[in-house]
Amino acid sequence: MSQPFNIRVYFEDTDAGGVVFYANYLKFYERARTEFLRDLGYEQDDLLQQNIVFVVRNIHVDFILAARFNEQLQVYTRIESIKKASLVFKQEIFCQREGQSRLINEAVVKMACVKADVLKPTPIPAPIAVSLQQQQQREQDS
Amino acid sequence: MSQPFNIRVYFEDTDAGGVVFYANYLKFYERARTEFLRDLGYEQDDLLQQNIVFVVRNIHVDFILAARFNEQLQVYTRIESIKKASLVFKQEIFCQREGQSRLINEAVVKMACVKADVLKPTPIPAPIAVSLQQQQQREQDS
Amino acid sequence: MSQPFNIRVYFEDTDAGGVVFYANYLKFYERARTEFLRDLGYEQDDLLQQNIVFVVRNIHVDFILAARFNEQLQVYTRIESIKKASLVFKQEIFCQREGQSRLINEAVVKMACVKADVLKPTPIPAPIAVSLQQQQQREQDS
Amino acid sequence: MSQPFNIRVYFEDTDAGGVVFYANYLKFYERARTEFLRDLGYEQDDLLQQNIVFVVRNIHVDFILAARFNEQLQVYTRIESIKKASLVFKQEIFCQREGQSRLINEAVVKMACVKADVLKPTPIPAPIAVSLQQQQQREQDS
Repeated sequence: MSQPFNIRVYFEDTDAGGVVFYANYLKFYERARTEFLRDLGYEQDDLLQQNIVFVVRNIHVDFILAARFNEQLQVYTRIESIKKASLVFKQEIFCQREGQSRLINEAVVKMACVKADVLKPTPIPAPIAVSLQQQQQREQDS
Repeated sequence: MSQPFNIRVYFEDTDAGGVVFYANYLKFYERARTEFLRDLGYEQDDLLQQNIVFVVRNIHVDFILAARFNEQLQVYTRIESIKKASLVFKQEIFCQREGQSRLINEAVVKMACVKADVLKPTPIPAPIAVSLQQQQQREQDS
Repeated sequence: MSQPFNIRVYFEDTDAGGVVFYANYLKFYERARTEFLRDLGYEQDDLLQQNIVFVVRNIHVDFILAARFNEQLQVYTRIESIKKASLVFKQEIFCQREGQSRLINEAVVKMACVKADVLKPTPIPAPIAVSLQQQQQREQDS
Repeated sequence: MSQPFNIRVYFEDTDAGGVVFYANYLKFYERARTEFLRDLGYEQDDLLQQNIVFVVRNIHVDFILAARFNEQLQVYTRIESIKKASLVFKQEIFCQREGQSRLINEAVVKMACVKADVLKPTPIPAPIAVSLQQQQQREQDS
């Protein structure tokens, strides 16, 4: 599995229950996917200028443990499958507690590649598809 | 199906893609569940004082169409099933476009009843369980 | 003063301190300004299509009392001054507590009218300027 | 001036205008103040356990230039003044554009030290007050 993306829990992320508000885990996952693409060499503002954007088609999230204010989280992102115009990510959030790494949240995210102006499906551009497949291969090998 | 809860899309809800940011649909669903409980006679700040809170265990969301800035959305919330210490909601968001009501987003949300101080499962308090069952019955009858 | 815009405090608005997170009052003020313009007959998605958007140049916010989860807030919005390409709003948030209306937050917001594509100042379109002046006159008369 | 705190602009931070939503700069400033206190050796979750929290009394924000999706921002935080139970921060956000560091946003933030349970003013604990004064001295010397 590749290097995790680190996220600090700030006041903005929490709610009156004292823990991270449930919708905000989706922000964390989105940040981690952005950094995943950046690590592969793709900047989403460049992609937008090429009229390409990846949008979430569906997501399944399991809220296992609640992240608390000021905790440091590690978000792992890997590719589960790639198709012509879509791909599926598996993402997991861990937190260090009492010296142990605990899984606190996990998600499966199906994304579609769409034309940014009309939001209609379009094939993943070839260089990106190749990068994604190579990354998936590296993950399977490691 | 009961009356929908109306939500207006403000600038805060959108992102640079020009549509509602994907995590924000979970805010809309949470607001609608809060109003659903309120309609049944239960205020969550009262429940918190009784050390009761409902937390999301898992959620599956389908992003069908993108909601746009300034649109008015209708959120429908109904009970799919009730157990001793948990329940499942089915929620749907509709939008009026070109004179038609379009389904733009849907979610299945499993919630657990927990003690607010320790976040451990606890049975749904009897009066709330009865209210939920009666509401489920009314939805099935209608 | 015109009719207030009502806002319910949901979990998403609060933080681990148990009260509304300070940045979120700016969301409430923005919603109220959007409704203020709508009441005058102007929809901001229409304005965007005319390449017009109002942006905040500066804001001063006084956090007087903390709004709590599940409270119902009343936001009052009135025009303090209008210039060729900018205007100043005075906004106040009240909350009912122990049978009394309490001022909990207030803001002075300077906004500029800009071309949406280049974000450069442009005169407020004449019909809107007239509507704003008439509204300011009505507020002063009442 | 001390080291800046770096913030990346993600989709969650932007709005349909294509730039950072105005309320979100207050999130950036809060994150930077949290890191400022951490650098001085104070963790806010520890402070909360000692019933101490710093709350914003008032803020003045100037929105000079709009931050865009995917930009990297530098937030500078320094102490303007310290009193028995309150302090004032001056904060600035810079962005690198065309090889130049541009000031895009600035704020003056007055904070009060309060007891977390009752939100009533209380003197800044002596060790923190000393740390803040030393930091202010360092900033003035540099």
